[in-house]
Amino acid sequence: MTDRFAVTYRVRSDAASIAARAEAIAVEQSVEMPLAAIDEPAVLTDIVGRVEDIADRGDGTFVVRIDMATATVGQDAGQFLNMVFGNTSLHDDVVLEDIAVPASLAALFGGPRHGIPGLRARLGVRGRAFTGSALKPQGLAPERLAELAEWFARGGLDFIKDDHGLADQDYGRFAVRVSACAAAVARAVRDTGHPTRYIPSITGDLDQMRAQLRLTQEAGLDCAMVVPMIAGFASIQAIRRDFPTMALFAHPSLGGAARIAPALLIGSLFRLLGADAVIFPNHGGRFGYAPQTCRHLVRNARRTDDGLRPALPVPAGGMTLARTGEILDFYGPDTMLLIGGNLLMARARIAEEAAAFARSVAQHPYR
Amino acid sequence: MTDRFAVTYRVRSDAASIAARAEAIAVEQSVEMPLAAIDEPAVLTDIVGRVEDIADRGDGTFVVRIDMATATVGQDAGQFLNMVFGNTSLHDDVVLEDIAVPASLAALFGGPRHGIPGLRARLGVRGRAFTGSALKPQGLAPERLAELAEWFARGGLDFIKDDHGLADQDYGRFAVRVSACAAAVARAVRDTGHPTRYIPSITGDLDQMRAQLRLTQEAGLDCAMVVPMIAGFASIQAIRRDFPTMALFAHPSLGGAARIAPALLIGSLFRLLGADAVIFPNHGGRFGYAPQTCRHLVRNARRTDDGLRPALPVPAGGMTLARTGEILDFYGPDTMLLIGGNLLMARARIAEEAAAFARSVAQHPYR
Repeated sequence: MTDRFAVTYRVRSDAASIAARAEAIAVEQSVEMPLAAIDEPAVLTDIVGRVEDIADRGDGTFVVRIDMATATVGQDAGQFLNMVFGNTSLHDDVVLEDIAVPASLAALFGGPRHGIPGLRARLGVRGRAFTGSALKPQGLAPERLAELAEWFARGGLDFIKDDHGLADQDYGRFAVRVSACAAAVARAVRDTGHPTRYIPSITGDLDQMRAQLRLTQEAGLDCAMVVPMIAGFASIQAIRRDFPTMALFAHPSLGGAARIAPALLIGSLFRLLGADAVIFPNHGGRFGYAPQTCRHLVRNARRTDDGLRPALPVPAGGMTLARTGEILDFYGPDTMLLIGGNLLMARARIAEEAAAFARSVAQHPYR
Repeated sequence: MTDRFAVTYRVRSDAASIAARAEAIAVEQSVEMPLAAIDEPAVLTDIVGRVEDIADRGDGTFVVRIDMATATVGQDAGQFLNMVFGNTSLHDDVVLEDIAVPASLAALFGGPRHGIPGLRARLGVRGRAFTGSALKPQGLAPERLAELAEWFARGGLDFIKDDHGLADQDYGRFAVRVSACAAAVARAVRDTGHPTRYIPSITGDLDQMRAQLRLTQEAGLDCAMVVPMIAGFASIQAIRRDFPTMALFAHPSLGGAARIAPALLIGSLFRLLGADAVIFPNHGGRFGYAPQTCRHLVRNARRTDDGLRPALPVPAGGMTLARTGEILDFYGPDTMLLIGGNLLMARARIAEEAAAFARSVAQHPYR
């Protein structure tokens, strides 16, 4: 018996067609050819996907569970995505809903190297949520972004990340920005004594990402942000392997384009790939995630029952100071609150506003 | 005045909200922060996205055209995707519909190095469509796949590609498969005199992709298949640069094309990245694309008015021999017909069936 794992799809279909649809997905995501044309018995028994369960949700959709062969994944995170959703993503009535990642793949990909415990140990932060903000807007000169970073750090925030729009543009080269922002945050840290971390956004192809990560390390930094859906899963896998001391923050950009359930993509898969923290759109902000989607995503990110470390959930996307208490009650302390634009509105008073944010998180009485 | 380009989104919205939704997308995809908090005039004039047009489609959706700053893209194909659809992809009521790629980005990315004219010149094929098939199922030993390849080649097909599920699995190592299949096709070519090309599927991270491409070249091959949505746009950009003699076939796996219009993603963007041929799901096959979607996609793939070469369209996904004539009439001769599983059904008669396919394409009287 070969190693297999269950993949769950939600399929919009009528009851008369669902059995055939389910069988078609099982074939599409494994051998992608008529079974009648396969004369190798081992392929039919060991490789072809098997429909294990079909459940009617009663809303015009069915949950289809398909059993897939782990051997088809090989060692490659990109191929993993290819095997679970490659061609089926082209059907606009199918959503990839869940994957029961087998122990062999969990061990292969490895999950967070640091995760929540590693980040807590690095910053010495216990018993409260983390705080963070973002450097924006792109187009601002690196020295102006560095000024912002220094104000945030002087306010006592834990993390200051690049906006995911900051790449290596003519108006703001990565090397210039990162050395300026790292120096600015280091100045503030010397004064405040609080170990604020600056998180550069890593972009480009794998060579460029590695070069940026080396610059990041040379600037004395130990955190970096990556975008798995744009960089490609295999690139993230390579970075996790090559930069073991880096804590990786995963950004969800382009994450909506593939019709993969957010709790699976951002909560489970980004963590599986090695994200130590996962940024996601909080409910009630600029994006349309429901509270139960966020709860499910966070449960996936923090799980430890598979032997991997828990990843830090980072709800974001239009958060405000006024919502701090409510967000903390919803997510609990193993969370990082990311407030970007709302803090920037304070302009000259950014350090004070950041300090108020840090205080409200530190003093929050969890219900 | 800085260089700008238009990006078109289709947004499901009510009429009362659409102006604010459009403005929110323009901000999200550029500076991602409240404009009131931006005190740098150059950022407001040169970087922030601008809503240029909103058109009511009368079906509950609006077409929104936003003018973006080319400078935000830098030199990076991944960042290009990030700037046009990164966070907005997380809104499930927005589809990325079109991009008016500016001349500066067309020149930067460069499009197909070979395209239709290069492929015609290589194979000496004129005045008719190309033919192709796929090696499946995965799980079959490399020598069995090589046997299939030889039969297809003896039937006189132009192209034989790996199934996109074939990666570098334990049961079929890339190096073993590619050398076996290349040798098998070369044997047939010596006998038939027809210059059949074998197209290996390239997977993994950029280092692994480069290693596979070097093996491909060492095996005397000059075509390769890549999966832009899994590999990441930046990886494809690097491969186009590093392997100029390779003709690149783009596979749509994970294209999740419901949210990025297929005509844009597969027809325009894969070509822009350098795909010499673009594989896409034909109408009437296993996938739900409409005929007009396919027509639009093919028009985008074949365009030359931007100074780039035309890419060869490859309609696929459940095609049959019986449909050859209809498909050729629909697409015309600057096309490659890809029939996979249907040919494999012939089992021991695969070479004869492939020959019948090649003949029907060669002798087709275009209407």
